[in-house]
Amino acid sequence: MTKIFTQQEIIKVVPELDLISEIENGFTYFSEGQVNVPQRGELYFDEPPGEVRINYGNILQDDYYVVKMSSAFPQNTSLGLSSTNGVVLIFHSKSGQLLAVLLDKGYLTSVSTAVAGAVVAKYMAPKKISKIGVIGTGTQARLQLEYLEKVTNCKEVLVWGRNSTNAQKYAAEMSKKGFNVEVVKTTADIGQNANFIITTTPAIEPILLDKHIRKGTHITAVGANDSEKNELEPVTIARADIVVTDSLDQSRSSGEIFQTWINGLISDDDVLELGNVIKDKAFQRASENQVTVADLTGMAVQDIQIAKAVYKHLAS
Amino acid sequence: MTKIFTQQEIIKVVPELDLISEIENGFTYFSEGQVNVPQRGELYFDEPPGEVRINYGNILQDDYYVVKMSSAFPQNTSLGLSSTNGVVLIFHSKSGQLLAVLLDKGYLTSVSTAVAGAVVAKYMAPKKISKIGVIGTGTQARLQLEYLEKVTNCKEVLVWGRNSTNAQKYAAEMSKKGFNVEVVKTTADIGQNANFIITTTPAIEPILLDKHIRKGTHITAVGANDSEKNELEPVTIARADIVVTDSLDQSRSSGEIFQTWINGLISDDDVLELGNVIKDKAFQRASENQVTVADLTGMAVQDIQIAKAVYKHLAS
Repeated sequence: MTKIFTQQEIIKVVPELDLISEIENGFTYFSEGQVNVPQRGELYFDEPPGEVRINYGNILQDDYYVVKMSSAFPQNTSLGLSSTNGVVLIFHSKSGQLLAVLLDKGYLTSVSTAVAGAVVAKYMAPKKISKIGVIGTGTQARLQLEYLEKVTNCKEVLVWGRNSTNAQKYAAEMSKKGFNVEVVKTTADIGQNANFIITTTPAIEPILLDKHIRKGTHITAVGANDSEKNELEPVTIARADIVVTDSLDQSRSSGEIFQTWINGLISDDDVLELGNVIKDKAFQRASENQVTVADLTGMAVQDIQIAKAVYKHLAS
Repeated sequence: MTKIFTQQEIIKVVPELDLISEIENGFTYFSEGQVNVPQRGELYFDEPPGEVRINYGNILQDDYYVVKMSSAFPQNTSLGLSSTNGVVLIFHSKSGQLLAVLLDKGYLTSVSTAVAGAVVAKYMAPKKISKIGVIGTGTQARLQLEYLEKVTNCKEVLVWGRNSTNAQKYAAEMSKKGFNVEVVKTTADIGQNANFIITTTPAIEPILLDKHIRKGTHITAVGANDSEKNELEPVTIARADIVVTDSLDQSRSSGEIFQTWINGLISDDDVLELGNVIKDKAFQRASENQVTVADLTGMAVQDIQIAKAVYKHLAS
């Protein structure tokens, strides 16, 4: 019998799960070749503009396969609707039976990206984070901070947003959650004052300039997830001491690393896969002077891991 | 608010819909280039063997997009479970919102294949069908006959199945539905006595030999939907007067036409697309002596059309 779970039920159960372990395992399974994730499906719409993604696959030897549909229709916000949406389906990999429909409306995608950010911080952040810099003021800017709390004690946050009202709103909300948040006027302020930076915008041109990035800084770029979007200058990726991607394969066609690669400033050998970084200390941050960058493009293995965890908990 | 519909609700509403028109429109939209259906997703499992397909897309200018997941796990039957399974999701193409989950367990896929068979019969069957020959005794063998009833008056049926108990069971069931069904011992009996033949098996070698096929016969092959399966001899496709596929593109990698093409016996110019046959009388059966073949590989546009029809009716 197929179980149907609402977004409300899912939101309620998520804090009870150890998602950092789940997603971390997902990344290592992936880099060990224990995951079957075919190329995702995509649909595009023009009027109004919209993108749909279908991520699917399974962990080998697992009893499940997962199909996640997610969408972004930016103009939804003018109708008072969320711009992002989604649903996750979990099937039994021995019979094809549909076990559960997670009507999460995209919530689990947002969470899994934020958890991936925390995993990155665990292995790549400088030992002492003086200030966390957040570029962007949306859902992901909020969630990244919330999950970062599980792996760092730093509560000092600088935030920049294109829209200053949204930035003020962000600061007010996150302050209530125990962070000391200061709104800054430029991304230069972020670069010059924070040594752990998260970029969460849909920018299509670099939004944080290389000249503003200090020695010893780590940057996690989560905004760019296609071949058009771009938040960092290629020179930043090129000169970073450690460059990590969730998926080498996806970085060949999407995100910051892709932008650097098409500019001829980087080769495959210069990029590490997060699953390998997790497993091998030799690939992790080695000194407090290194500039490190993680480019997260988003992978089906995250969806698989988070869906399984939610399902097992809710169905038990 | 997402609506959830059970298989029971769906089965109940299907007879009230004019699915022949809906699917027929789908085929013409497709051949007119009015459909966006990217390549389907696939997952394969070894132990036990299983295939999963993800068909998705939209009719341009339509307010919906549809994602259908279907699976076949043949060993399910030994557990008393259906070997096929599935679920269909309908989204709003202006906002990405999930409108409905059709928990059809694969029923709509079976129906849409059967309806496609009826559409084919409408345009390609000989004027007078003396006997309908059915090869195979599964769900599709049943549904093809039921939908054929909407476009032909012939009630005389010959059936052949590898397993004679199943063939007897088929004959008993379909007789109750008003057909005169005779179980035959060989597919030669089918070829020599029926002039409208439906092949519905998962055969990987030709199951109906060319030498047994009479002048004036139409054959609809629905079993083969990948590069391995094959129910007809390539020479049958090669010598047929009219050869029709649902999708020229899919026939380049799957089904009977693919098998004929890799044997060098056919080129693209020899194959018509069903949508064009529907629209243009010049492409339809021209005489009672012609041998005609339709190879149905199954298309997302069918899923889109049937899902929309079911949704609109159930949600209204």
